[in-house]
Amino acid sequence: MTGHDRALAMQAKRFSVGVDLGGTNLRVGTYAGGSDLLQLVTMPARISDGPTQVVHDMAGAIRGLMRMELDGLPFAGVGIGMPGPLELPEGILRNPPNLAGWDGFNLRQAIEEALGFQVAFESDANVAALAEFRLGSGKIHQVDSVCVLTLGTGVGSGLILNGKIWHGSTGMGGEAGHIVVDSLTDDKCGCGGSGCLEQFASASAVMRMATERFGSRAPQTARELAQWARQGDAEARSIFEFVGEALAIGLAGLINTLNLPLYLLGGGVSDAWDLFAPAMFAVLPQRSYVYRLTAPAELDPAVLEHHKTYIMKAHLGSNAGILGAALLALEADAPRGAILEETVVNQ
Amino acid sequence: MTGHDRALAMQAKRFSVGVDLGGTNLRVGTYAGGSDLLQLVTMPARISDGPTQVVHDMAGAIRGLMRMELDGLPFAGVGIGMPGPLELPEGILRNPPNLAGWDGFNLRQAIEEALGFQVAFESDANVAALAEFRLGSGKIHQVDSVCVLTLGTGVGSGLILNGKIWHGSTGMGGEAGHIVVDSLTDDKCGCGGSGCLEQFASASAVMRMATERFGSRAPQTARELAQWARQGDAEARSIFEFVGEALAIGLAGLINTLNLPLYLLGGGVSDAWDLFAPAMFAVLPQRSYVYRLTAPAELDPAVLEHHKTYIMKAHLGSNAGILGAALLALEADAPRGAILEETVVNQ
Repeated sequence: MTGHDRALAMQAKRFSVGVDLGGTNLRVGTYAGGSDLLQLVTMPARISDGPTQVVHDMAGAIRGLMRMELDGLPFAGVGIGMPGPLELPEGILRNPPNLAGWDGFNLRQAIEEALGFQVAFESDANVAALAEFRLGSGKIHQVDSVCVLTLGTGVGSGLILNGKIWHGSTGMGGEAGHIVVDSLTDDKCGCGGSGCLEQFASASAVMRMATERFGSRAPQTARELAQWARQGDAEARSIFEFVGEALAIGLAGLINTLNLPLYLLGGGVSDAWDLFAPAMFAVLPQRSYVYRLTAPAELDPAVLEHHKTYIMKAHLGSNAGILGAALLALEADAPRGAILEETVVNQ
Repeated sequence: MTGHDRALAMQAKRFSVGVDLGGTNLRVGTYAGGSDLLQLVTMPARISDGPTQVVHDMAGAIRGLMRMELDGLPFAGVGIGMPGPLELPEGILRNPPNLAGWDGFNLRQAIEEALGFQVAFESDANVAALAEFRLGSGKIHQVDSVCVLTLGTGVGSGLILNGKIWHGSTGMGGEAGHIVVDSLTDDKCGCGGSGCLEQFASASAVMRMATERFGSRAPQTARELAQWARQGDAEARSIFEFVGEALAIGLAGLINTLNLPLYLLGGGVSDAWDLFAPAMFAVLPQRSYVYRLTAPAELDPAVLEHHKTYIMKAHLGSNAGILGAALLALEADAPRGAILEETVVNQ
């Protein structure tokens, strides 16, 4: 057994806690080796009750799960994935577009005070990217860099460059959801800008467009709208085609700038892949000449061809965020892990 | 003297050849230690005569300069900066928007056959970024990552991430000139797309806008247009304001995605900084909330503040490309250098 194998085997024997705070649900789970689910707690994300309430909910679930595992595997740490932008390493939220009223809140300080030990933080899209890279499509396709766009309540993005999360200088890298795709619209985005990708490719955007077109008879969810589209409703179909065109413009900017081998689309809206992908692939070659030069003959092959650009549906689905958070805790600095184990033993 | 100092001193004693192929001029220079100019040859870039002619011109100048230096410093290699997109490591041009008729040309093979030894290749914007990073603003401001936009005949971009050129998976990273800034225009860009940053912020774009507004009495150069603007011509001023607004949209995408500490604007159009920068800084906070959250109190301080985003005029001016190419040759693999020295000795 090599040192590397031993390290992996050791890691597999530790458990970590992953926390995924979304716009709708707060999910806290324990995983062995960052991938095997032990226990999962799901509760409503009480965003509108303010950050103190959510930190209270989070800390309660973490402590509860840790107690349940105490007789089992050694504890490695807690990783938290949060909607951004999150100033790192401080862990302070900066005007998050989907967490109204949380601006300036020091989430790291609050949760570490509540728990009594240090935790690892990342934006939700970065942890999702980490999980896709280590356990999902990145692992399957053996790439060293990947960009993940998460089409959820908002549009997040996470970048893994040469095997590592790209934070940017203040932890705010990967806000590709706010690339401008329509410079002329005056409709305001939650970020304060206008014409952002998020306004055309998030679940909220899909629902806004559905209301614009169908008025009071609009479906209640993006999933229902997708069903209408699959049943042949032309208006519903055109909404998803519009999503595909907006994604093509946003992806064109990323592809021209970064020239990565693989871009993944995850989050709820990505379930409508069959509805938006044809429009996206039709527009992409017009919008990105790097894509035109590197478009693969087969869009979804078993083995990726070298020197090509692939855009695929993310592999892990809605679990990418929480898995990535659990992985993050395992990959955090060793000293932090040591402090954590001691804390648990003394409780 | 430490090992590192010794390596630097040794490097300073070698000379390398930098080649900068632009839309107008071909420049070939010898530099000691990648920074001190020994000799510079400037000639017209005979682009329309085709790649074979340009390779002939390039190889002739390189051989001539190498012969002049043969009795002096040891030779380290040749570095070439080219308009992209350049497929690396192969060195094949792929449908370059500003080099009509060069599509598919294997530049590496042609120049290496002409010279009889290996050379180092990069896109022109990547070598300019390398020079700015090692010798210009990156060195002055001590950053580890920087993005350089070169506003020349086209708009190129080069990325240095954690001290290294970011190539992307096929060497086509850094084509931020083709980020879409106006998704609704039908005017075609040289890249085949439409609404690209290059169509609004390159010297060619400035001249196109001048012709649209002034017709036959339009000035002959972007520099002359800038003089008109400085003398108070409202139409000329509004063209540069438009350049600033387009740059803000393009930079917003880069800032939101990458969150780097420093973005530099170089190339000919950057000489009109005083004319476009006010509009750019006015629009940026509306277009990028990461910028809004990280905008510095002082735009051009002596010491950069941590956690802030700076956009500055590039430091090295029009020499960045050729300096970066000469640096590239010094930083290339040691075995390649060894082969080269032997080749020179045997000539």
